[in-house]
Amino acid sequence: MHHIDAELPSAITRVLEDFLHNAGDPIRRTEPTFGPAVDALSAFVLGGGKRLRPTFAWWGWRGAGGDPDSDEAQGVLRAAASLELIQACALVHDDVIDSSDSRRGAPTVHVAFAAQHRQQGWLGSSESFGWAAAVLIGDLALAWADDMFADCGLPAARMAAARPAWRAMRTEVLAGQYLDVHTQATGDASVEAALRVDRLKTAAYTVQRPLHLGAALAGAEQPLIDALLDFGGDLGVAFQLRDDLLGVFGDPSVTGKPAGDDLREGKRTLLLALGLAYAEQQGRVGEHKVIADAVGDPRLTDAEVDDVRQALVDVGAVAEVERRIEEMTGNALASLKRAALAEPAAHQLAELADRATRRTS
Amino acid sequence: MHHIDAELPSAITRVLEDFLHNAGDPIRRTEPTFGPAVDALSAFVLGGGKRLRPTFAWWGWRGAGGDPDSDEAQGVLRAAASLELIQACALVHDDVIDSSDSRRGAPTVHVAFAAQHRQQGWLGSSESFGWAAAVLIGDLALAWADDMFADCGLPAARMAAARPAWRAMRTEVLAGQYLDVHTQATGDASVEAALRVDRLKTAAYTVQRPLHLGAALAGAEQPLIDALLDFGGDLGVAFQLRDDLLGVFGDPSVTGKPAGDDLREGKRTLLLALGLAYAEQQGRVGEHKVIADAVGDPRLTDAEVDDVRQALVDVGAVAEVERRIEEMTGNALASLKRAALAEPAAHQLAELADRATRRTS
Repeated sequence: MHHIDAELPSAITRVLEDFLHNAGDPIRRTEPTFGPAVDALSAFVLGGGKRLRPTFAWWGWRGAGGDPDSDEAQGVLRAAASLELIQACALVHDDVIDSSDSRRGAPTVHVAFAAQHRQQGWLGSSESFGWAAAVLIGDLALAWADDMFADCGLPAARMAAARPAWRAMRTEVLAGQYLDVHTQATGDASVEAALRVDRLKTAAYTVQRPLHLGAALAGAEQPLIDALLDFGGDLGVAFQLRDDLLGVFGDPSVTGKPAGDDLREGKRTLLLALGLAYAEQQGRVGEHKVIADAVGDPRLTDAEVDDVRQALVDVGAVAEVERRIEEMTGNALASLKRAALAEPAAHQLAELADRATRRTS
Repeated sequence: MHHIDAELPSAITRVLEDFLHNAGDPIRRTEPTFGPAVDALSAFVLGGGKRLRPTFAWWGWRGAGGDPDSDEAQGVLRAAASLELIQACALVHDDVIDSSDSRRGAPTVHVAFAAQHRQQGWLGSSESFGWAAAVLIGDLALAWADDMFADCGLPAARMAAARPAWRAMRTEVLAGQYLDVHTQATGDASVEAALRVDRLKTAAYTVQRPLHLGAALAGAEQPLIDALLDFGGDLGVAFQLRDDLLGVFGDPSVTGKPAGDDLREGKRTLLLALGLAYAEQQGRVGEHKVIADAVGDPRLTDAEVDDVRQALVDVGAVAEVERRIEEMTGNALASLKRAALAEPAAHQLAELADRATRRTS
């Protein structure tokens, strides 16, 4: 394996560090007041994350024949790493939208800026100041994602080939976020609605488009791209279903999130949709009520979370989600085989699929 | 004058219509639920605005020798029009940040989506739903601005020349917005702070960078770009100072905004900074108090607005702002002469400068 392949996350972090330094430098000099906003974005991007999207983009490129010893490898790394800035925008704005207090074990951006406002005894509402800062910092992340991508240094023909993936990805993640908010507002608890959110927000944005982007940067033909989109679609949904299970059953000491937080936040997952549908089909009124009452109740106790877990097991929702993860992972691996990617990409993506769908955090 | 020169605003609206249709089409098919968000953005962009930034970009291009009969003219129109999408992001997010209820005589985006939520009797807070929708619609505007710019169809060398202006503009407007929020929070009422916001938020973003972008797309050399930046810097601040005067003294039936709204919102303008500084220098305790108490008081009456107007006139702040507008417009026109632009751009920009600094709405 090439040395970039072997230490991909740190190679991605390195190009992000470079970009953030160079992008922040001129505006810090023009307007030093903006420095803390740039610092907050840099800390957010460099401080965590699994580099999942850049990793898929990189293996998409390698699998379609991209040569890590070529002049283009550093440009591809930069293009791939720019996905972390889109993700920073998505998360910072998501935390504003959900009024979340913590992320990756630290205060969210809006909470940190509100705290600074409070500490300094500034005028007006600390909460509003925090929101304003987080909205603008998320915008900065999105603008800089485009800068990092557009200025990655790859030849114009490569960039033109990758633009359809780049365009689709950014619109799809926003549509997915909107659909998520909309589904929570309408209270649509159907299996179909949950799957639509999963397909758009996780599968398309997290797996399919990054793979598509990487493959397009290597000049891949449509059949290869189609096979990668099939792989990514199944893997992405399977990945989200594992996430849903961990959100309810995960060990807080491993996931870093309080147990049952997904329930308290009212997240409409396929797991819950199946739980409600099965309880109704089986005439289990008690289980239906336990699940329905729990979703979106911010004061849910740990004992009540346990009751929901039991209900989801009893009606068969957990077994069905596990079955779907298994099935979709199988389908994904079949599509991967059909793609006939260059090694070590085929092997690495198969391993990623395995890890992502079997993980415990 | 060429026919595009003569009907620039409608030519800009036409390419925006085309872009919004083409960009919205695939995502409407993938996820129809997102349709109302796309509609809201389209209505916002097509429903109003003076097309000021695209107009400066177009004249920057024409002035640096861009030929409206060349193959590149339509690409330049698209690149210029994409600035309206950046502006849509800035305004939609600004309205969230300021909790503004109306814009261009219609409900703001977050208010309209909150109203829809209320009307449909959906779950959760209508206000939160409105905010979430507006944050995501602003993000979509920013992502689409980059798509419209990057895919405008101009040759790669042209695009590469324009990227420094494009990069600087988006970072500068966000820094300007942040500085504005920050200045209101710290209560910094100094002349210097007000001027820094004006230079970044209006001069750089509204005038300098659009001119820079246009000129760069025509392959302009640095001395021409520098002269345009000087022109734009002075004109942009003069433009903002006229806006500040209209915000306090403007006729609501002409400006479309309630009289004194800038005062109620607590906008820290150079006009107010000078009013406070002069009142203090002159030992006019009464006038100082009238101005200081009015800024940021949401319940300010029309009679109190009249008192502030009188105080600003009496201490000489209005005369000084008028003097600065005059002086800066003069400097701007001198820089414009130095730029020695191709006609009709020189003439058109001089006229724009005149209109922008003498307007009544």
